[in-house]
Amino acid sequence: MTHRLFGTLCVIGPGLIGSSVLRRLRAQPGLVERLVVSDRDPAVLERVRCLDLGDIVTDDLVAAVGEADCVMLCVPVGAIAPVAEAIMPHMKPGAILTDVGSTRRSVVDALTPHLRNDISYIPAHPMAGTEHSGPDAGFATLFEDRWCLLTPEPGIQQDQIERVSAFWRAMGARIRVMDVDHHDTICAMVSHLPHLIAFTICGTADTLAEDMRSEVLDFAASGFRDFTRIAASDPTMWRDIFLNNSDALLSVLDRFSQDAAAMAQAIRDGDEHTIVETISRGRRIRRSLLENRQA
Amino acid sequence: MTHRLFGTLCVIGPGLIGSSVLRRLRAQPGLVERLVVSDRDPAVLERVRCLDLGDIVTDDLVAAVGEADCVMLCVPVGAIAPVAEAIMPHMKPGAILTDVGSTRRSVVDALTPHLRNDISYIPAHPMAGTEHSGPDAGFATLFEDRWCLLTPEPGIQQDQIERVSAFWRAMGARIRVMDVDHHDTICAMVSHLPHLIAFTICGTADTLAEDMRSEVLDFAASGFRDFTRIAASDPTMWRDIFLNNSDALLSVLDRFSQDAAAMAQAIRDGDEHTIVETISRGRRIRRSLLENRQA
Repeated sequence: MTHRLFGTLCVIGPGLIGSSVLRRLRAQPGLVERLVVSDRDPAVLERVRCLDLGDIVTDDLVAAVGEADCVMLCVPVGAIAPVAEAIMPHMKPGAILTDVGSTRRSVVDALTPHLRNDISYIPAHPMAGTEHSGPDAGFATLFEDRWCLLTPEPGIQQDQIERVSAFWRAMGARIRVMDVDHHDTICAMVSHLPHLIAFTICGTADTLAEDMRSEVLDFAASGFRDFTRIAASDPTMWRDIFLNNSDALLSVLDRFSQDAAAMAQAIRDGDEHTIVETISRGRRIRRSLLENRQA
Repeated sequence: MTHRLFGTLCVIGPGLIGSSVLRRLRAQPGLVERLVVSDRDPAVLERVRCLDLGDIVTDDLVAAVGEADCVMLCVPVGAIAPVAEAIMPHMKPGAILTDVGSTRRSVVDALTPHLRNDISYIPAHPMAGTEHSGPDAGFATLFEDRWCLLTPEPGIQQDQIERVSAFWRAMGARIRVMDVDHHDTICAMVSHLPHLIAFTICGTADTLAEDMRSEVLDFAASGFRDFTRIAASDPTMWRDIFLNNSDALLSVLDRFSQDAAAMAQAIRDGDEHTIVETISRGRRIRRSLLENRQA
């Protein structure tokens, strides 16, 4: 028999991540007794009803969170603190507030002043996604074998952290608990910088002369194809990530820009040693990734 | 019945590309009567013999090219001109010399002074590859539905160009004939710049503090994983590409760096409009790619 994790779970913002959580819970009945789903967009709620992803589907945030043992915010990073502030007075004493944001420091700083003492805020970042978005884009296996990073502040009760960990393990994820700022630097490097670069290079291609641009599209080799896959991601979500993790992101971008300038100089100088050394590093990192069974 | 394209084809440098050509020809007997394979590395030739990819397998370049109706150089870009110079006096009158290089201008400039009047040099660039290399990495379907760009100089006989086109069509590729410099700029944008960036970002990750680097590997999200796949490519091949297409590459890298700096400034300024516009371009390019059935 499945161990029940929450009586009532409220998912706010059933997009790619939120609807994947809901699908997984539908596939494993018993983990949660009742699913409440809320969004401000009526079209999204209509899709959620059609897909039968919630027991109660409503645009009334206050009513949605009132009975919830856990409220999970699956809204873009920039909306987490405002939505949390709006629902805070209406949450049940002892409830857990969690989210699925990709950046942490700015969210924690904005949200903390509004936190009630009888609510445990346990931020979670499931490192999973595709370039698609919206309630139709989700699928139950999205989190399978992916990491979910929890960044609770000191002082949060261990048993509450354990409930959120158990929830994400039930989603198929592996759990790591870490410090907020450490999280933001790691994610700036492995996810936010690659996305910024992918968006930028597509823009660079887009500004080429009209005749050349059409050929760029004709001849997009595998290198460029991979970049455009990343670059097809949701603009609002990534705008919020960039703005909310700007310090860590600009710091790794600065390192990267220096490294790119050094590579350019090596090419200009015909410095074969530096070029080969830089390329070889890619192979080493790739090998390490394979050893970590992440590739 | 298969139409015979060449009596004797000599493939020099049977790596990923060369061995894929050989495999395809083995799978379609009749296109070429006799396959001669040559390489300076005895270990490579031993693998070619084991895989039965050639009728004659030899480290003697001069003997290898003597009877060939077509000599195909599948060596790294930097080796094309020196190898061509070495074999030129020994090629059969009327034979075709071709290659599979990813850059053109520097190769054409280096090779042209050594060309004989009775040899047709028809450079070809099959836009296909994986991050793997060597004779064991090839496969017969590598060129299926991929572009092969031909860049013959003015004055080359049309029927000779048609023979090379027919050859690559038989490999499964689509053909486009274009000017040398146009080729180099297009490829700098769609392939060389993305590779330079992928190599560089892996280097950036590699210079992070030891504890953080191990976590970068642990948590490599899909963005970074795609980059490391590209970055696992062969260092010698890419060193040669970068050095031989340095003008076009540095020019698009400069454009990209300016665009990345503009994006950094937008993030610093909290300029939501510019950020969203840049990200949205990625989606537009992606959509165009899908419409071109290249993604």
